[in-house]
Amino acid sequence: MTPSRPDPVAVIGASGALGFGLAVRLARTGVPIAVGSRDATRAEETADRAGSIVPDGSFSAHGNAEAVRAASTVILSVPFRNQSETLTNLKQALEPGQLLIDATVPLAAAVGGKATRMLGVWQGSAAQQALELAPVGVRVVSALHTVSAASLTDLQHPLDQDVLVCGDVPADKAEVASLLERIEGLRCVDCGALEMARTTEALTALLISVNSRYKAHAGVRLTHLPELLWE
Amino acid sequence: MTPSRPDPVAVIGASGALGFGLAVRLARTGVPIAVGSRDATRAEETADRAGSIVPDGSFSAHGNAEAVRAASTVILSVPFRNQSETLTNLKQALEPGQLLIDATVPLAAAVGGKATRMLGVWQGSAAQQALELAPVGVRVVSALHTVSAASLTDLQHPLDQDVLVCGDVPADKAEVASLLERIEGLRCVDCGALEMARTTEALTALLISVNSRYKAHAGVRLTHLPELLWE
Repeated sequence: MTPSRPDPVAVIGASGALGFGLAVRLARTGVPIAVGSRDATRAEETADRAGSIVPDGSFSAHGNAEAVRAASTVILSVPFRNQSETLTNLKQALEPGQLLIDATVPLAAAVGGKATRMLGVWQGSAAQQALELAPVGVRVVSALHTVSAASLTDLQHPLDQDVLVCGDVPADKAEVASLLERIEGLRCVDCGALEMARTTEALTALLISVNSRYKAHAGVRLTHLPELLWE
Repeated sequence: MTPSRPDPVAVIGASGALGFGLAVRLARTGVPIAVGSRDATRAEETADRAGSIVPDGSFSAHGNAEAVRAASTVILSVPFRNQSETLTNLKQALEPGQLLIDATVPLAAAVGGKATRMLGVWQGSAAQQALELAPVGVRVVSALHTVSAASLTDLQHPLDQDVLVCGDVPADKAEVASLLERIEGLRCVDCGALEMARTTEALTALLISVNSRYKAHAGVRLTHLPELLWE
């Protein structure tokens, strides 16, 4: 590893569509990816598949806890139905100071409902649930709900959209932005406190509704913003 | 009135910022506007003010019920705190077949809370409350929550954004689109059933949060959609 190499990022749920897309897109920019899965065999398969798409990418395969220990930044991209259990199982692995990017969406599909509908989460949003479940000191930021997994995974697909970022600490959001903006075509927008994730998460359901109408993979772009969004 | 002149549109709440902006923007495209207000004097003042901004626009001033009777399409743009009472008072004026475009946003500010937070509406959204309160047969469509009032009112400001449209009847949404797309720079996107207004309404609060961070008047654009959005 050369000194200029970026820090590794753990992707928990990298075998899922969004996690996989993020893994390959980030790896292509030189970020080493710790592929996490509950099942070590599945992690291996996912790392192999990612490596075949980004041959010069760095992918290592781990169980979830080991992946978390291998990186200072963790992207949590699991189905809502697994979020609580996953975070509970990671309580010993996550450490204060780690950055946890939560991309979970509480779609009603988690309990057999429609993917255009949301579940009410007692804490307000999946991101707020993540904050509650993560050890104290883990820096939770919510992001990535409006970025289509299909577009991410298709490396030929030009991305041209915003990542809506919510969190309670501006510096944490800026750190997320500097990581995710390595991916060409993604611009991060500070949408406010973590509680605003209630709405950014719901945008996934809205986009699923739009996509079903137009057979598209829509993204979101906020217009009329200044050039410089992060200091 | 020449045969080619578009049908008049009633704007209920035209003295408010969003209603006023819509009135002047639509009037500029040749749509006669029935300016509605609870207070007839206020309607007169608003119509005069609109006429001074769009001198060749057609603005007539009415009480709310009279404005509704003067138009087949009604835009409801009142504070959430007044939505229920306004619609109850319009029960005798609204007629089956009329198109009601609801732009109400249940911001927590209605009860002294933050404008970046939403109230829970029992029916799910202000639009669904409008559907419940309007006489049977009134065609309720939800729209316009992400369009900044300030940008609409400033006629020099190029609009470059989408209007997210929700409703249960595709033909009604298409009718709304053909009206609102008269305004240059606005593109309407079908976001699905009326219940999706829960999220499009919440986007107002999200944009208020973004705007406060960036001192902007942000709008929303959905990317990666096909050219033709309405048949």
